[in-house]
Amino acid sequence: MKIGIVGLGLIGGSLAIDLRQLGHTILGVSRSPKTCQEAIDRHIAHQASPELSLLAPAEVIFLCTPIAALQATVEQLIPHLSPATILTDVGSVKAPVVEAIAPLWQNFVGGHPMAGTAESGLDAALSGLFIDRAYVLTPIATTPPAAVEIVSELARSLQSKLYQCRPIDHDRAVAWISHLPVMVSASLIAACMSEADPTVLDLAQKFASSGFKDTSRVGGGNPELGMMMARYNQAEVVRSLYAYRHQLDQVIEQIEQQNWTELESLLEKTGSDRPAFLSS
Amino acid sequence: MKIGIVGLGLIGGSLAIDLRQLGHTILGVSRSPKTCQEAIDRHIAHQASPELSLLAPAEVIFLCTPIAALQATVEQLIPHLSPATILTDVGSVKAPVVEAIAPLWQNFVGGHPMAGTAESGLDAALSGLFIDRAYVLTPIATTPPAAVEIVSELARSLQSKLYQCRPIDHDRAVAWISHLPVMVSASLIAACMSEADPTVLDLAQKFASSGFKDTSRVGGGNPELGMMMARYNQAEVVRSLYAYRHQLDQVIEQIEQQNWTELESLLEKTGSDRPAFLSS
Repeated sequence: MKIGIVGLGLIGGSLAIDLRQLGHTILGVSRSPKTCQEAIDRHIAHQASPELSLLAPAEVIFLCTPIAALQATVEQLIPHLSPATILTDVGSVKAPVVEAIAPLWQNFVGGHPMAGTAESGLDAALSGLFIDRAYVLTPIATTPPAAVEIVSELARSLQSKLYQCRPIDHDRAVAWISHLPVMVSASLIAACMSEADPTVLDLAQKFASSGFKDTSRVGGGNPELGMMMARYNQAEVVRSLYAYRHQLDQVIEQIEQQNWTELESLLEKTGSDRPAFLSS
Repeated sequence: MKIGIVGLGLIGGSLAIDLRQLGHTILGVSRSPKTCQEAIDRHIAHQASPELSLLAPAEVIFLCTPIAALQATVEQLIPHLSPATILTDVGSVKAPVVEAIAPLWQNFVGGHPMAGTAESGLDAALSGLFIDRAYVLTPIATTPPAAVEIVSELARSLQSKLYQCRPIDHDRAVAWISHLPVMVSASLIAACMSEADPTVLDLAQKFASSGFKDTSRVGGGNPELGMMMARYNQAEVVRSLYAYRHQLDQVIEQIEQQNWTELESLLEKTGSDRPAFLSS
């Protein structure tokens, strides 16, 4: 199959590497001529160019640009496409993307391969990034089933765990387990830094060990990515933050009122609820 | 040196193992005759008994019982001791412990070896648990410097990183980096479980990966330990929770008001502030 990839970063590059190994022909597009040359030199893409016209013969095109550039990319891409071409994206938020792109191109399947590393860019692209990771497709009523099946088959060939759901259900689910944790974790670091006594702050920094390290990890990650999560999934992130604050207020009240039995029951429940989130 | 250890669990047992390897004579006390026998059979203690009178010849005694049992243990121990005997504890909260024990025994040095595993009990005790971990001593104005020096020397011999500070400064510091993260992390799990739509909750559980796993880890730990942190360090935990909620409210406001530049600046700052907490 001829597969186009727009945006040769971590996700686009990693898709190219795996799909080429599976025997597909890879046509890559990046705004940067240097990245295009690197994609060819490293045998990541068969052909690469800053020109979207390169993708005219592609049967499936993965849109791997930042979410902010998706709609403009599709608008510029359309004049080069035959109606049978299937478009799919890799954005981490689905409702706004599907709402923007589906009216422009019928053969569009919203997608989200839930993989990544702390790195970014084509240099970070690697083989096998999607193995055993969730790959979510969010078709809507107007999405042609044949297009969903072709993208599904490609996702399965990457050894991903394939899921299908409504765009809004995807966005609510990732708000809980991906976007909310970033805000919760960043707030922990910021709260510690608000300690006004330098002696106490210094001791806190010296005493911190694995518990603090784990709880603060995603709050110390890529700032632009964290901001973009909130920006594109605003309503669902705010919804999860209000639920979180309500829960936090209950913990504060339990501790203030010395309801130790209730607090211990809560901690027992969180301990027994957590494993259901760790299956992957 | 003759060293007594009251409470042969994870910490007491691990102290016994290391101090015996360093050539000291270990006298162990546990309420459970079975644990005493195990400590002798496994060559963890030279002698072990449920009777505190066993500790009469000890020069230094580590109090490794739960915090709730500390004061009663010291009161029962005192009739057996010579005035030169040094007492030190291993409790994870220091101000209430020091306030309770210091008036009972002058040669008392508050201590907190900041080590542990997910396990508990003598079966979990292991060699080298304290290497490169913080070991905090919290002497007060009335603590004899010679007693502090002897406990310091023992802590150093375990290859711990030795710190000294005021009990209240210890408690504030551990509220930030140990107790607050438990409440923050548990609230994340509980908030996710509050999702009323079973489809969304199911997707969230399936999509959760390393970010959620790390952020939720300490909130899914030992419930009794988590409750005890809040109970014995109540004032400082509440103080840290209020500061945290204030910070969280700022994040919510930034997202609601679409202050993306401010949110990104905050996430840049948390990213650059985090490494100072990761030195150990």
